[in-house]
Amino acid sequence: MNAYFKDQITQFKQQNQNRGRLLVSCPDQPGIVSAISNFLFYYNANIIESSQYSTNPEGGVFFIRIEFECPLLKEKAAEMKQKFTEIAAKFSMEWSLTPVYKVKKAAIFVSKELHCLQELLWEWQSGDLMTEIALVIGNHEEARDVVEGLNIPFYYIPANKEIREQVEEKQLQLLQDYEVDVIVLARYMQILTSRFVAANPNKIINIHHSFLPAFIGARPYERAYDRGVKLIGATSHYVTNDLDEGPIIEQDIARVDHRANVDTLKKIGRSIERSVLARAVKWHIEDRIIVHQNKTIVF
Amino acid sequence: MNAYFKDQITQFKQQNQNRGRLLVSCPDQPGIVSAISNFLFYYNANIIESSQYSTNPEGGVFFIRIEFECPLLKEKAAEMKQKFTEIAAKFSMEWSLTPVYKVKKAAIFVSKELHCLQELLWEWQSGDLMTEIALVIGNHEEARDVVEGLNIPFYYIPANKEIREQVEEKQLQLLQDYEVDVIVLARYMQILTSRFVAANPNKIINIHHSFLPAFIGARPYERAYDRGVKLIGATSHYVTNDLDEGPIIEQDIARVDHRANVDTLKKIGRSIERSVLARAVKWHIEDRIIVHQNKTIVF
Amino acid sequence: MNAYFKDQITQFKQQNQNRGRLLVSCPDQPGIVSAISNFLFYYNANIIESSQYSTNPEGGVFFIRIEFECPLLKEKAAEMKQKFTEIAAKFSMEWSLTPVYKVKKAAIFVSKELHCLQELLWEWQSGDLMTEIALVIGNHEEARDVVEGLNIPFYYIPANKEIREQVEEKQLQLLQDYEVDVIVLARYMQILTSRFVAANPNKIINIHHSFLPAFIGARPYERAYDRGVKLIGATSHYVTNDLDEGPIIEQDIARVDHRANVDTLKKIGRSIERSVLARAVKWHIEDRIIVHQNKTIVF
Amino acid sequence: MNAYFKDQITQFKQQNQNRGRLLVSCPDQPGIVSAISNFLFYYNANIIESSQYSTNPEGGVFFIRIEFECPLLKEKAAEMKQKFTEIAAKFSMEWSLTPVYKVKKAAIFVSKELHCLQELLWEWQSGDLMTEIALVIGNHEEARDVVEGLNIPFYYIPANKEIREQVEEKQLQLLQDYEVDVIVLARYMQILTSRFVAANPNKIINIHHSFLPAFIGARPYERAYDRGVKLIGATSHYVTNDLDEGPIIEQDIARVDHRANVDTLKKIGRSIERSVLARAVKWHIEDRIIVHQNKTIVF
Repeated sequence: MNAYFKDQITQFKQQNQNRGRLLVSCPDQPGIVSAISNFLFYYNANIIESSQYSTNPEGGVFFIRIEFECPLLKEKAAEMKQKFTEIAAKFSMEWSLTPVYKVKKAAIFVSKELHCLQELLWEWQSGDLMTEIALVIGNHEEARDVVEGLNIPFYYIPANKEIREQVEEKQLQLLQDYEVDVIVLARYMQILTSRFVAANPNKIINIHHSFLPAFIGARPYERAYDRGVKLIGATSHYVTNDLDEGPIIEQDIARVDHRANVDTLKKIGRSIERSVLARAVKWHIEDRIIVHQNKTIVF
Repeated sequence: MNAYFKDQITQFKQQNQNRGRLLVSCPDQPGIVSAISNFLFYYNANIIESSQYSTNPEGGVFFIRIEFECPLLKEKAAEMKQKFTEIAAKFSMEWSLTPVYKVKKAAIFVSKELHCLQELLWEWQSGDLMTEIALVIGNHEEARDVVEGLNIPFYYIPANKEIREQVEEKQLQLLQDYEVDVIVLARYMQILTSRFVAANPNKIINIHHSFLPAFIGARPYERAYDRGVKLIGATSHYVTNDLDEGPIIEQDIARVDHRANVDTLKKIGRSIERSVLARAVKWHIEDRIIVHQNKTIVF
Repeated sequence: MNAYFKDQITQFKQQNQNRGRLLVSCPDQPGIVSAISNFLFYYNANIIESSQYSTNPEGGVFFIRIEFECPLLKEKAAEMKQKFTEIAAKFSMEWSLTPVYKVKKAAIFVSKELHCLQELLWEWQSGDLMTEIALVIGNHEEARDVVEGLNIPFYYIPANKEIREQVEEKQLQLLQDYEVDVIVLARYMQILTSRFVAANPNKIINIHHSFLPAFIGARPYERAYDRGVKLIGATSHYVTNDLDEGPIIEQDIARVDHRANVDTLKKIGRSIERSVLARAVKWHIEDRIIVHQNKTIVF
Repeated sequence: MNAYFKDQITQFKQQNQNRGRLLVSCPDQPGIVSAISNFLFYYNANIIESSQYSTNPEGGVFFIRIEFECPLLKEKAAEMKQKFTEIAAKFSMEWSLTPVYKVKKAAIFVSKELHCLQELLWEWQSGDLMTEIALVIGNHEEARDVVEGLNIPFYYIPANKEIREQVEEKQLQLLQDYEVDVIVLARYMQILTSRFVAANPNKIINIHHSFLPAFIGARPYERAYDRGVKLIGATSHYVTNDLDEGPIIEQDIARVDHRANVDTLKKIGRSIERSVLARAVKWHIEDRIIVHQNKTIVF
């Protein structure tokens, strides 16, 4: 299967060698779209997909994501970035220009429960998650077989409160060695230190097994059961130093009734968790998310 | 339209003159269903619909709802109730035996926003909510026209914190005069005293404009907006003396995205609120709900 | 209530006096967005919302919808339209530039079942459907009371196969007299002649009570019941001369099970029909729909 | 992982050694539930779950599914079956009494696309699908690695129109050798002969990649694309000799829009197909389905 995926990723890179993505946020005012589209037209780029949003046309913040096809993008990219700084300066833009063929590298963190990991591996194998899974780190051994079976490096790093800092040092070293772009916590049941989080702003994606902000913290399914809710949910969000309070990327729910005990809730929940996390990771990989004031704009 | 509904309700009563509903809860043990079904068979009743649930087959609580067709039910009902007390005693049952032709009487409480009231009136006019809407009480005048236009008595009783007790005295008097079975708070924006609540246990149905237990309390849409959630919801529950903590009857959600401001959330929310409340009221009217330890079993 | 709505519509017109919408479709090529955004910038317009889509970046068709805020739009509109013809010619565009304050005029056609009509009236009264409901035409009298109660003209025009042409002549005359922009068939149970349809291209919106293309034609709920489906649906589409084959605007479904008989399916279905039709009408009113080769692009 | 599953299945069998399921259908009349529950009470069985349905209380067909806990079920089962024949005769019942510890044996048929197979394997490994996957038969080799990796026998039997009968002979032999109870067509792209179907009535479960009865037959996603639908679906059904016309077990849909091309529809569809098929198989395994006149009652 891994061979199949290598074919897919090679094919993807070839098909997208001229494809770029431009993300911009800046104070709203007339002329932004005009300036950006003139810039792209100057480089003979064709806009394939464009989404924009403004918090308020008067005095608000403007966001845009453009996906474009530009002949000879590899050759032009450096010059384009250089030129775009002028427009960016004029409109006080925060921006990024990303070539699509540079596939992002992901690290997946996991503990004992494998359903979220397996969904990601599956999507990845079927070519629906165009990332390079650089490595998987587990604080338990459960995931080793399935991960190594796909020729992905697996690192077993036991973890607990007492040794948190040493553990994270090892993890950070690995992330650096593998040049990781995004960290996915696929039901990784350890809390990260503020140092680790600060080193990876808007790069750590977590799945919380409840419909946040309901049931923040531990044992959400048990508490959902006790409260007698009629829907349970899952939430994927960027990790910040406020536990379960980071910018929400995606949420979903499933209907339950009085017959569901805690185990049934967990089973139903697993199915929501895996699809919610997979969608969030996919959107991140495709540069569809802009974080603004602890919220996400998802284009 | 009222004439049309009167026809419908008359027709409903005739069609259901032999229809009864039996609700039972008791400690689980073998022989319960056998005892109940023998009892019904003795009275020549045919079981039309039956739902049961046990919290735990060993040492748990057993719940059953049976809808049956029994020839000459009106004549037999008193004797059946008398006889059933023996079975009930043997199994330590809490139970009710309700004839379906006795349509329940509802009071609707409303403030300024009418969407929940209108959904209920609509369902009622179309014959989907088989209740008698005995009266509508508003602490504002907004609802008068639409209510009186359907020949339903409307009582304007202004309310605020200072006069809460006098207000509730008037309300309780009206509920008694009209022999009301169920009170629906259709976005009634006043808090009820514990005295009022205690006088109507498991009889007051509220709609909360959030996916409880998220955003308990005031201004849920504003807080949902601030948190950047990707789904908003509504919750219908029985009112207890713990604010927004009563047994949940029904919940639903709708998907939202970054483009939705507070007003948009409210508009989307109104549509969820009205359908969630209507379903909860319908289930109550049809004797489908059993409350057990601050949760609902909905059959 | 009508007074309330008049306030709302007046307020809406004032708030949107400078708001315009530009819809464009043309062969895809680089430079389109640049040309359009330069044009808007020249008139000092700020782009508020913009959605685009291309069937294929190479040799496909490009579609864009832009909502913009332009100071003194009323004064400039004529000149802008004049100027835009040059760009349109260069790129072979089909296009429209619509001022938002010019609220569209709708005619609703209805037969005996009122649920779709009532949903539209409700959305309209609550200010969620920014259209002027110019008149309602019924081939039965059932709708008169509710329509006239809102001070909307109601025309009773009995109809059947034999007198179809005379009936439509009257209808077309009324549509002309009231300067109607969009015709909504809210469960109007008469077939329209090709002449009527041809006179109103992409202007007649129908609701079909099934998940098209399943159960094309008559008695869809009966046939859904016979087939034992587990979901039922509704479809809103523009009317063409191929029965139930026009461009689909919106669809939705609800879950059903073996307990649902035909009547239950119809009840459940009514709730889907009314929300699906309301969404389709709203999108049409807001110029969100472009028809292309018997499909809709809904921005 | 297989070891893990073996533990699970052993544990399941032990936990369910006294658990039985009774499925009954017969002409409706008073006394059925009474007779059945007396029977169970006589054997000291406690009813855990019970669902019933009647097509019509007067002259209709009555269906019931009871799950019960009966001490020493293994020892009593033969006698209970013997005794139940008397009740069955009296009420003209079709019935089955199944011990839960006897886990059903499944054969999975697959072609090139593996997503449905993988979902089933996954659910099975996580203990959510309590079946013994006896073997997998493929008319292509794609599935071999993943199947054999789980120590499940894989049989590669190439198939096409010309050799259909020889192929099916081999398959039928294997089904007999492995004592298979249920055959799952997990995107198996071959048509079965009437002989094969007749030999396995209500035992073959298929997944069709459309929302039946829309897009019966080949290339449903292509046709959904051409029609411009706004929802796509999948349908799981028992196989009969009318192509795609067998009793529907489960259906589900996902929302799509104009941006989805055929490939996107297929990707979205895969996710619906796998969950719809998994639910159908689970319900079958748990004896929740009764087929009646080309429809299913799913308890």
